[in-house]
Amino acid sequence: MSKMQEILENALVDSWVRHFPRSGRQINQAHETDAELIEVAGLPDHYLAITTDTVAEEITEGLYQDPHTMGWVTIMANLSDLAAVGAEPLGLVVSVCIEPSRDAAFSDGIAQGMADACRDAGVFILGGDTNSTRVISLTGCAIGLVPRKEKITRRGCNVGDVVFISGGVGIGNALGLARLAKLPPERFPERLYRPCARLQEGQLVRRYASCCMDTSDGLLATLDQLMRLNDLGFVLECNWPKLLTRPALEFCAGTGAPPWLMTAGPHGEFELAFTVPEARREAFLEAAHALGLFPIRIGTVQETPALTLALDSGERVEVDMAPLRNLLQTVQGDLSRYLEEFRGWGRKWGLE
Amino acid sequence: MSKMQEILENALVDSWVRHFPRSGRQINQAHETDAELIEVAGLPDHYLAITTDTVAEEITEGLYQDPHTMGWVTIMANLSDLAAVGAEPLGLVVSVCIEPSRDAAFSDGIAQGMADACRDAGVFILGGDTNSTRVISLTGCAIGLVPRKEKITRRGCNVGDVVFISGGVGIGNALGLARLAKLPPERFPERLYRPCARLQEGQLVRRYASCCMDTSDGLLATLDQLMRLNDLGFVLECNWPKLLTRPALEFCAGTGAPPWLMTAGPHGEFELAFTVPEARREAFLEAAHALGLFPIRIGTVQETPALTLALDSGERVEVDMAPLRNLLQTVQGDLSRYLEEFRGWGRKWGLE
Repeated sequence: MSKMQEILENALVDSWVRHFPRSGRQINQAHETDAELIEVAGLPDHYLAITTDTVAEEITEGLYQDPHTMGWVTIMANLSDLAAVGAEPLGLVVSVCIEPSRDAAFSDGIAQGMADACRDAGVFILGGDTNSTRVISLTGCAIGLVPRKEKITRRGCNVGDVVFISGGVGIGNALGLARLAKLPPERFPERLYRPCARLQEGQLVRRYASCCMDTSDGLLATLDQLMRLNDLGFVLECNWPKLLTRPALEFCAGTGAPPWLMTAGPHGEFELAFTVPEARREAFLEAAHALGLFPIRIGTVQETPALTLALDSGERVEVDMAPLRNLLQTVQGDLSRYLEEFRGWGRKWGLE
Repeated sequence: MSKMQEILENALVDSWVRHFPRSGRQINQAHETDAELIEVAGLPDHYLAITTDTVAEEITEGLYQDPHTMGWVTIMANLSDLAAVGAEPLGLVVSVCIEPSRDAAFSDGIAQGMADACRDAGVFILGGDTNSTRVISLTGCAIGLVPRKEKITRRGCNVGDVVFISGGVGIGNALGLARLAKLPPERFPERLYRPCARLQEGQLVRRYASCCMDTSDGLLATLDQLMRLNDLGFVLECNWPKLLTRPALEFCAGTGAPPWLMTAGPHGEFELAFTVPEARREAFLEAAHALGLFPIRIGTVQETPALTLALDSGERVEVDMAPLRNLLQTVQGDLSRYLEEFRGWGRKWGLE
């Protein structure tokens, strides 16, 4: 697990986990799944999936300025963790902590964002907790069910498996870069960032894939984490028009932002990244198309535990995501240094 | 429900709830239970209970200064909500948001407090989320199971039912008053505040009681909320040595704090307050004693929808908790005015 520990966030999680004895009911190990899976007596055919996620820094750092975004993402971030284990949601609870200075329009905006996300996903808020606090934080907790026979985790891929994403990525990092670089809001309107949890996709993927994880920390960080967990590597075919959604591509075209940043930055969206054994690939795609889903093939699993970018030029670049994933801590939260050093790696790798 | 709306916190909860359509799976209405109850296909004999609770203001306002308390209460507050619906816990997830300036000893203290609370309750942390934020907040989410045939909510008491608490109260408000009045810490050491969720008690109570709620907002606020929900009132027998735990009584004796404050303040603990029909009282007590539990009889349900304090002097005082429950908002968070006005009501009612 030393490769896991190179990432400061993994080490931080472990510093918490080591205090807590493990439940005999729990199926997954730490880091192994986006949502926790537990056995419940009386539910012989399913695991109960549970997850919690907080939206806080994204608000205090100014990344989300519209309360609707704040509410939307709080819901979708939790549902996306359920999607990545292929769970069918049972519902959510939310804990909202808001400064007393905020007006009713602000709270209503958050509530509407939550309600809209729930409607989009066909899921219900069951209850929650409200608090008046010095600084805003919004926490969700979602539960769902996964058929035991179709359990899927972040572990299990093999050399030669095909890597897919459920849809194009990049809108999270487009918004992130627009804010970091202090671009005018119209360069990437916040309303374009309404990422959806891929619940239907997850329920299909669990039947075919060998591992799965959501892209909430950005696509390259997701592949990097899967690489460390599986002790295998990935070749990523960097065909940007195929990998990125249109709003992210247009953002790059309009601002000159290099496309690799849309996959390398830490602010992702809620697509699923997953691997399908070659032998099941055709059947998977047929089943996906029958549901009107069009997963995007982005690469393959390789034996070398590295992340290799296969560029359109034919060139191959091995990128080490550790310094990028740890950069916010390395620069001690200094965001202008963060952006500068981040792009320095891109230049070093010949990506911009 | 206009009586419910007199309490600003109830109105605040409703201002959120009205945005959210109701799940067809949900059994309880808003305000009606400490934890949400849902039907799960495949679990014909049980309801799934889920709850979330955040500890934030208690830390930023200086009420909790020891990280062990912060972790302990985060766990117990959530388990107590499960206890109040008689649920058997399945586990918890936690989301910890901590300032980057805090050192490892601080995080370790929180984790140890969480681990100790879990061990005490025989419950496990399944997973969670860590965040670096400007201001600390700790959120838990707990799930459990309740037999459908033994469902209990905050609604259902009848005139003549006997009111019990699962154990003596007052330590929460002793700590609260010690902090508000800026007393030296040895007057009420924070380590005395380690309230336990009454899980075993809840699983017994669900078989005999007509309604149940935890005392996390203080005993009188709990009875006030039950009064509003049931449209019936309570006579509370104010035998302080019986109602309060020894540390709370000793705090009153040592500082001259009036005992009523230990039940009226907003910072409670995790006892259960519940009502048992007279016809089931004897069987309930027998079953409790057989388990080594000694619930405390504290009053009866009356038809008049009021909270009547029956003092040892023989005098009866009707107290309206609305101005006290709304006081923090009325004084706009000014804590010195809060304490002064709070005690003004006590003098008005002849309680100090």
